[in-house]
Amino acid sequence: MGRHGVGWIGAAAAPAAVLLPLLLLVAGGACPGARAGLTSEYRRHLGSAIDMPLDADVFRPPPGQNAPEQVHITQGNHDGTAMIISWVTTSEPGSSTVVYGTSEDNLNYTANGKHTQYTFYNYTSGYIHHCTIKKLEFDTKYYYAVGIGQTVRKFWFMTPAKSGPDVPYTFGLIGDLGQSFDSNVTLAHYETNSKAQAVLFVGDLSYADNYPYHDNVRWDTWARFVERNVAYQPWIWTAGNHEIDFAPELGETKPFKPYSNMYPTPYKASGSTAPYWYSIKRASAYIIVLASYSSYGKYTPQYKWLEAEFPKVNRSETPWLIVLMHAPCTEYQMWHTTS
Amino acid sequence: MGRHGVGWIGAAAAPAAVLLPLLLLVAGGACPGARAGLTSEYRRHLGSAIDMPLDADVFRPPPGQNAPEQVHITQGNHDGTAMIISWVTTSEPGSSTVVYGTSEDNLNYTANGKHTQYTFYNYTSGYIHHCTIKKLEFDTKYYYAVGIGQTVRKFWFMTPAKSGPDVPYTFGLIGDLGQSFDSNVTLAHYETNSKAQAVLFVGDLSYADNYPYHDNVRWDTWARFVERNVAYQPWIWTAGNHEIDFAPELGETKPFKPYSNMYPTPYKASGSTAPYWYSIKRASAYIIVLASYSSYGKYTPQYKWLEAEFPKVNRSETPWLIVLMHAPCTEYQMWHTTS
Repeated sequence: MGRHGVGWIGAAAAPAAVLLPLLLLVAGGACPGARAGLTSEYRRHLGSAIDMPLDADVFRPPPGQNAPEQVHITQGNHDGTAMIISWVTTSEPGSSTVVYGTSEDNLNYTANGKHTQYTFYNYTSGYIHHCTIKKLEFDTKYYYAVGIGQTVRKFWFMTPAKSGPDVPYTFGLIGDLGQSFDSNVTLAHYETNSKAQAVLFVGDLSYADNYPYHDNVRWDTWARFVERNVAYQPWIWTAGNHEIDFAPELGETKPFKPYSNMYPTPYKASGSTAPYWYSIKRASAYIIVLASYSSYGKYTPQYKWLEAEFPKVNRSETPWLIVLMHAPCTEYQMWHTTS
Repeated sequence: MGRHGVGWIGAAAAPAAVLLPLLLLVAGGACPGARAGLTSEYRRHLGSAIDMPLDADVFRPPPGQNAPEQVHITQGNHDGTAMIISWVTTSEPGSSTVVYGTSEDNLNYTANGKHTQYTFYNYTSGYIHHCTIKKLEFDTKYYYAVGIGQTVRKFWFMTPAKSGPDVPYTFGLIGDLGQSFDSNVTLAHYETNSKAQAVLFVGDLSYADNYPYHDNVRWDTWARFVERNVAYQPWIWTAGNHEIDFAPELGETKPFKPYSNMYPTPYKASGSTAPYWYSIKRASAYIIVLASYSSYGKYTPQYKWLEAEFPKVNRSETPWLIVLMHAPCTEYQMWHTTS
């Protein structure tokens, strides 16, 4: 994106989506020469989708004793020189360490993370590891490995170039993904674009909440399904309504419990006080992620944060200002529909 | 209120109010014979108000060793047969027990509460006691006492009559009160109405957040100031913007910290999962309290709760449906003003 004319990929297939993801794309204000990027066709299969069965290939855990699974990465700081590496082990905690480096054969750096667990009704999660690797070089390929002993798994990713108005970059745009057969087609379609470097994920990940008791096993299958992409390029997370998992009838009254345990964001780096709203820079884009399901009215933490955020956007450095949120603005007018 | 034509008192004086409290009063739908109640003049002094100094009479702590202070009560269950009694002790925890009864000389019932403390930046609260007394008779005068040894303090309140369409009741309506000299005039004005039985408080209590570091001493002074009324009749609490106390610059990032520690609500009794939105019945009124500064969009806990709440309102039993919230609906459209 930017002056060099690169592409946008929009792709979404939803099993039971009730909301269309919304992307506000504001470009060129401070950069009169900027040309709008290219965007691909919006793809959406209408009609109800059928979820892939639990024994589907794409849900298969990796082989090996206590092998790290559900590997996923997201940007780990504001400027793109850090990455949060996350994964799950199931039989024992194992190690929360990531080894990494710029040579595939010499992973000479080490970073230590932490692991956590959560319960949801009668489900207990695996050991969820999060490790942030920092001080990365811009525009560099990094290899990383997680796991220990015979079950080490290796992946790689590219850091973005240092932010600037002319830095080309190709984002994918996915929302309402789910884990239906169509979801697999969507992800495969995205993968056909070899230029795609990161995904802007505008909410509604697993749709586990459509299952009885919000069966959190479907959070695990979803993470194994998307690993083939999100282990190699960062997905920038936005909370959708299917992330709320508010289920007082099950005794689960803390919103975003599975989502917040599994999908960390670098919110502190932008002065945010909650993981659901934050900003990052990436190449020529300044990306603001907003939380449709956290309070956002005047005087609220999110509102105050956003007020302070706008002046920080330097359109000369990042001419692309992207605002991600799950619900269209009109959804926000609850009172019109209920009172 | 109800068919017998009773009064409404609206009174507000604000030191620095930026919002007008909003009251939605919906009456008579299922009760064609109902007449609107009487309402008093809306009182508001325009121009900036001056806060009463720390050594003002109305802020004086009660005499006696570790005397209970800041005594306040609010409805403790859904139908009005319970009351939450709250107070603060400052030098040591003392007792969290309330003794009570229907005869001033024979407080033959006992209920045990709990105490808590909180910190806010460099402030540490006193010992905040909350004790719910239950299974009260309708339409009955109760006497209660808190404190031990030489510092017992006695108060009383009236329970409402059992809910029904023809039960008269007089509510006060106060919001944006603060602790200015005008606030004192407002409260004194309210007190001149001897029929007033409970206060619907539509948010913005102490305005402590207007002080440097949100000086929480001003939460204490406010509570001592209003004790003369709220120790004798329940005030029904609504959260306003001055209750948020969100101060990341002070390391205080948990919204509503002082407010939620000091002012409990009977939210669980109406199936709510947070103290900021809930409902109660009182006499001929069904009162729904909404939270302007908690998320309320579609799919959120508050939205789901409200959706489930409306069908529960029996207009034959409680023809008056009162919805309390702090911010007018139009304030809720953040996107119109910021993006």
